[in-house]
Amino acid sequence: MWRASVLTIFPDMFPGLLGISLAGKALDTRVWALETVDIRAHATDKHRSVDDTPAGGGPGMVMRADILAHAIDSVPPIGRPRLLMSPRGVPLTQERVAALAKGQGAIIVCGRFEGVDERVIAARGLDEVSIGDYVLSGGELAAMALIDACVRLLPGVVGQSTSIVEESFAEGLLEYPQYTRPAVFERLPIPEVLTSGDHGKVAQWRRAEAERLTRERRPDLSAAYLRRQNRTTDG
Amino acid sequence: MWRASVLTIFPDMFPGLLGISLAGKALDTRVWALETVDIRAHATDKHRSVDDTPAGGGPGMVMRADILAHAIDSVPPIGRPRLLMSPRGVPLTQERVAALAKGQGAIIVCGRFEGVDERVIAARGLDEVSIGDYVLSGGELAAMALIDACVRLLPGVVGQSTSIVEESFAEGLLEYPQYTRPAVFERLPIPEVLTSGDHGKVAQWRRAEAERLTRERRPDLSAAYLRRQNRTTDG
Repeated sequence: MWRASVLTIFPDMFPGLLGISLAGKALDTRVWALETVDIRAHATDKHRSVDDTPAGGGPGMVMRADILAHAIDSVPPIGRPRLLMSPRGVPLTQERVAALAKGQGAIIVCGRFEGVDERVIAARGLDEVSIGDYVLSGGELAAMALIDACVRLLPGVVGQSTSIVEESFAEGLLEYPQYTRPAVFERLPIPEVLTSGDHGKVAQWRRAEAERLTRERRPDLSAAYLRRQNRTTDG
Repeated sequence: MWRASVLTIFPDMFPGLLGISLAGKALDTRVWALETVDIRAHATDKHRSVDDTPAGGGPGMVMRADILAHAIDSVPPIGRPRLLMSPRGVPLTQERVAALAKGQGAIIVCGRFEGVDERVIAARGLDEVSIGDYVLSGGELAAMALIDACVRLLPGVVGQSTSIVEESFAEGLLEYPQYTRPAVFERLPIPEVLTSGDHGKVAQWRRAEAERLTRERRPDLSAAYLRRQNRTTDG
């Protein structure tokens, strides 16, 4: 079973959204398991403080290395990576999500305050992961996004496995435009090819649209896609 | 007051995390307001269905243009952008977050199923925003991340405004390493410069470390940072 252990000072935030809809149903049916570790329970003073002022001065508070290390050590390492959600981390990609979903789960540390003492990151081999180039008030939402993305790839969670194959990033492309009933919406018809019944033409149109969208919106992804295409053709 | 209106088929997911901690306190003290619109309430059949099979075939379900348009039209446009959370969108950046936080709020549509009928995106001018290159089971977590990132930039939400100035991305750099007590953790001392009391040297060290981290981990951000630096020097 895929297991997520989340270290946080807000254990009450979980399961939150992860208890609803797709991920929630999969949690109920034990496709995956969620454990929270309250970092505060590992504090050593009577105020249960987990943070202190930054060495060298500056605003905010920093999470202490010793207390966080103690919390991390309370979770037995059973072949799961130790991640720290942080805007300084390696950007999360669907490829990374797929690799994580194939593993046994993840131990996920949620940062708070100005950050986490650098020494615990090194000493416990925390792998910093970023969900995007923006700053959240804490790592909890980021941890949920990572877990949700992984859980929907677990066998049996999404109804038809093909719906995962055709979605955004599956081939390094953004997803083609979708249409459904009604046939005409505010004078806008569904593109004729999609109602032609010609499956070959539909597939061709969708591929061309996915390539166009990716080229227009994400030149970075488009360039990587074309490099891969060329490699395949050359080989 | 900054207002977020979230259109979703899971209104119960809100406020969720946004009702706790920083964002939650700011919600209680009316620094910002949250409204949810249940898309299902705008369905026209007795099953309250909001989706249908994709034109042209394929797995999954697509959200109907007419029903979503009706839900969108129920939210008065008062100078707020209409966003659609989608992995096909423009990647969210801290710069975009700052611009959104300066505005009056946002109307945020949460996608579900295989996607949303393309015609409603065009007809209602939905601006597609992505929180990262991975696929979530729905737009709700993405909407929360966007809202959380904006709310913490609203005046008075984060204690000291300087802690926002020095964080990741504020100058296009990742944040420098942080340390706090204890002075020695598992034989690892705090770097000497940080306990020297020399504020100039501390600032210099932090800047150099932020530049080094960004160069090592995010060559893309580092290149953009150096271009800006050169422009400033030239001008």
